[in-house]
Amino acid sequence: MAKDCAPTIVALSTPNGYGGIAVIRMSGSQSLHIIQKIFSSKNKIQPQHAIYGYLSDKMGHIDTAVVTYFKSPHSYTGEDLVEISQHGNPYLCELTINACKEYGAIGAGPGEFTQRAFLNGKIDLSQAEGVADIIYASSRAAQNASANLLQGYTGKIIRDYKQSVVELISLLELELDFQEDEIQFTPRKQIEEMIRHLISEGKRLIESYNYGKIVRDGALCPIVGPPNSGKSSLFNAFLQEERVIVSPFPGTTRDFIEESVRIDKYSFRLVDTAGIRDSGDPIERAGVKRSRDLIKRGDLILYVIDLADCDIKLPKQPGLQNPKNIFYILNKSDIANQGTLAQYRKYLSGQKYFICSAKNRTGIHAIAAAMSKHIDQLCPSSDTIFITRLRHLEALKQTQKDLELALKSTRSNNPSEITIIDLRAALNGLDAILGKTTNDDILNTIFSHFCIGK
Amino acid sequence: MAKDCAPTIVALSTPNGYGGIAVIRMSGSQSLHIIQKIFSSKNKIQPQHAIYGYLSDKMGHIDTAVVTYFKSPHSYTGEDLVEISQHGNPYLCELTINACKEYGAIGAGPGEFTQRAFLNGKIDLSQAEGVADIIYASSRAAQNASANLLQGYTGKIIRDYKQSVVELISLLELELDFQEDEIQFTPRKQIEEMIRHLISEGKRLIESYNYGKIVRDGALCPIVGPPNSGKSSLFNAFLQEERVIVSPFPGTTRDFIEESVRIDKYSFRLVDTAGIRDSGDPIERAGVKRSRDLIKRGDLILYVIDLADCDIKLPKQPGLQNPKNIFYILNKSDIANQGTLAQYRKYLSGQKYFICSAKNRTGIHAIAAAMSKHIDQLCPSSDTIFITRLRHLEALKQTQKDLELALKSTRSNNPSEITIIDLRAALNGLDAILGKTTNDDILNTIFSHFCIGK
Repeated sequence: MAKDCAPTIVALSTPNGYGGIAVIRMSGSQSLHIIQKIFSSKNKIQPQHAIYGYLSDKMGHIDTAVVTYFKSPHSYTGEDLVEISQHGNPYLCELTINACKEYGAIGAGPGEFTQRAFLNGKIDLSQAEGVADIIYASSRAAQNASANLLQGYTGKIIRDYKQSVVELISLLELELDFQEDEIQFTPRKQIEEMIRHLISEGKRLIESYNYGKIVRDGALCPIVGPPNSGKSSLFNAFLQEERVIVSPFPGTTRDFIEESVRIDKYSFRLVDTAGIRDSGDPIERAGVKRSRDLIKRGDLILYVIDLADCDIKLPKQPGLQNPKNIFYILNKSDIANQGTLAQYRKYLSGQKYFICSAKNRTGIHAIAAAMSKHIDQLCPSSDTIFITRLRHLEALKQTQKDLELALKSTRSNNPSEITIIDLRAALNGLDAILGKTTNDDILNTIFSHFCIGK
Repeated sequence: MAKDCAPTIVALSTPNGYGGIAVIRMSGSQSLHIIQKIFSSKNKIQPQHAIYGYLSDKMGHIDTAVVTYFKSPHSYTGEDLVEISQHGNPYLCELTINACKEYGAIGAGPGEFTQRAFLNGKIDLSQAEGVADIIYASSRAAQNASANLLQGYTGKIIRDYKQSVVELISLLELELDFQEDEIQFTPRKQIEEMIRHLISEGKRLIESYNYGKIVRDGALCPIVGPPNSGKSSLFNAFLQEERVIVSPFPGTTRDFIEESVRIDKYSFRLVDTAGIRDSGDPIERAGVKRSRDLIKRGDLILYVIDLADCDIKLPKQPGLQNPKNIFYILNKSDIANQGTLAQYRKYLSGQKYFICSAKNRTGIHAIAAAMSKHIDQLCPSSDTIFITRLRHLEALKQTQKDLELALKSTRSNNPSEITIIDLRAALNGLDAILGKTTNDDILNTIFSHFCIGK
């Protein structure tokens, strides 16, 4: 598609800024021609060889550079591709890019190199999404998940799944061909069983998103509790104890302070909800509403309790009814009222509670280890492949709906034609994940979230 | 020096941040061994070949990557060097760097790759300085000057100059060998003439710094004038008209607003001094003092005059006595008082003045063109090589002093031994530029101003 008629594109592929090296990429049928116009070297340009030489434009010398040429189809995009490694100076990079443009290249749009790789059949759409995800992966688990996408393991699962649907369709079509003979090749019960199996397989993938979402975006982890229990102290203790990472994803919890910390292989989005309390004040009331919403969406809630307080305060807020994803943090162990501590131990027996002093930073490691273990337990045990993208979830849900219709139609003893229609519809969702039936608008949306130069 | 005993170093060489690609460099005798531990590929690693494969550490897969190996001495540092091009994700880059460190590499200090290139004799010290300069070059002229440094053209001039001094020393030493024969090989007058020639050559280089400094750092260009003459409007007109560049150099004019604009091949550091006026207020008085200091240091002064004001105000401030580097900007041409305009034309006859309306942005291009031409005229015409670094200026001045002493000693008919001592001392300054006699402290200072990864 993009092959020959597509213009040659050029862009800075490394982050913009001052540094030792910057890399400019140019892809398209004209890239070899253009680089020969602006780059001179004692050595001949050969595929996959790094050649040292000089870049220049019509005004003269620009910079020294190392140029590597990747010949179609053995390149990232599948087209002729040139990588220019020069000094990391934005002004000089601009001169080089402009020189390429003078000879006919055009500036690449966001994700256009990856889009070409997709259009030229080098990768499927889920792999392209893996490229976007790996650039923003901020934990080992996120890196693994995006690498699975990128390397096509997720795609393979989807393709295998699709193959099962296709085989089922073939079976039914075979019957159709011999319809007049009134022979039923496969017993209806068996067809039903096969569809049921497909549904349960799809369900497993759909459910894996609960874990996949946490892996990709980090576990949303609000810190809640009564006023003065030490929520902010706990928040800060984590930031100081663990490796703080700046999340590349825009915060979705604007009203609160959110920071990402990496614990073992996961990233946690800690949210300090301090300052929110039940109140008659309408602004504070709105805050409480947002806080409750956050608790509802939270993957793991840290409920902070003040051990120095003689008053026993257990959470009554709605949304805090699922004890499985609440960790009770009994804080201020350094100045604990022993009676209070004993009572909480009794009340919280059988639930997950931790004793710590956020101020003295004792007990924080144990909480962190338990947080990581908590997420581990959400991991679908049967398989290491899980889905991480909302788009995939939605496509799989659509497939699921179509399979349910196919099942219903089989059970109602409808003619095979009807079941085939539903099964064919079920393929659409799977093809969408692989990018086979994805319309241009969706494609453009996906690639517009890439950075330029990728 | 750094050759075999030096540890293998590793660092991110592209700017830190999220992007399509990031490049990590590793240099040293262990780099091939280390990359083979953490990188696997279907293809064999060969010098100068870009190989696609997978990075991993002891925890597992990190990222896909393209690795290029440069075999000693055919590398930037002169040592075995490996370039790892992976996805532009700071977290993944950190994993790769840590993997290299696990197998024995250590983190590179600022400029350490270039320092090794210097220590291994790949480049001289002035070329290393060219590397630092080219990364921050923000105009075509600065790029040219740093490329001259980097490619060794400046170094060649210094080496040629040094060669002339060495030849002169040889001449005198020859005499020394035959001293007892009381034969004077070269007439004293001729020696005197040769030293005089060396001095004038050095003087030319020293003077070229006036232009070189402007080329490298941008022309300091304060906008001054009476209150309400439109200084800020002129400042803004330039920023909107011309290509604004963010100066990579820290501003040295903290009390004022400074912005860099690129005009033709030069960069100009425009300084808006608005708000400073003669006053009894001590704080404002201090501001006026700083403003005057700025005028003294300015390479080109834009003195703004209000044409709508009937009151003729010519600059009386000290420092504004050199009409050669003052441009009078007759502003507000759109609402000019014709009498005022006529008077200024008379008063300023023979000086450089320009009529404009900063508000309507008319006449700005003509001023910009004249500014560029003004700097052009400072360019030493005889030669395109000029010095741009204060360190070089100081070294040349030291050489100059020693040559003056040698001249004096020759004129006083001192014995050749004395002249030789002065001439040998003169070599020190030149050797310092090339890095031959530079002590470690100075070397470390030079490289500490580099970025890490270069």
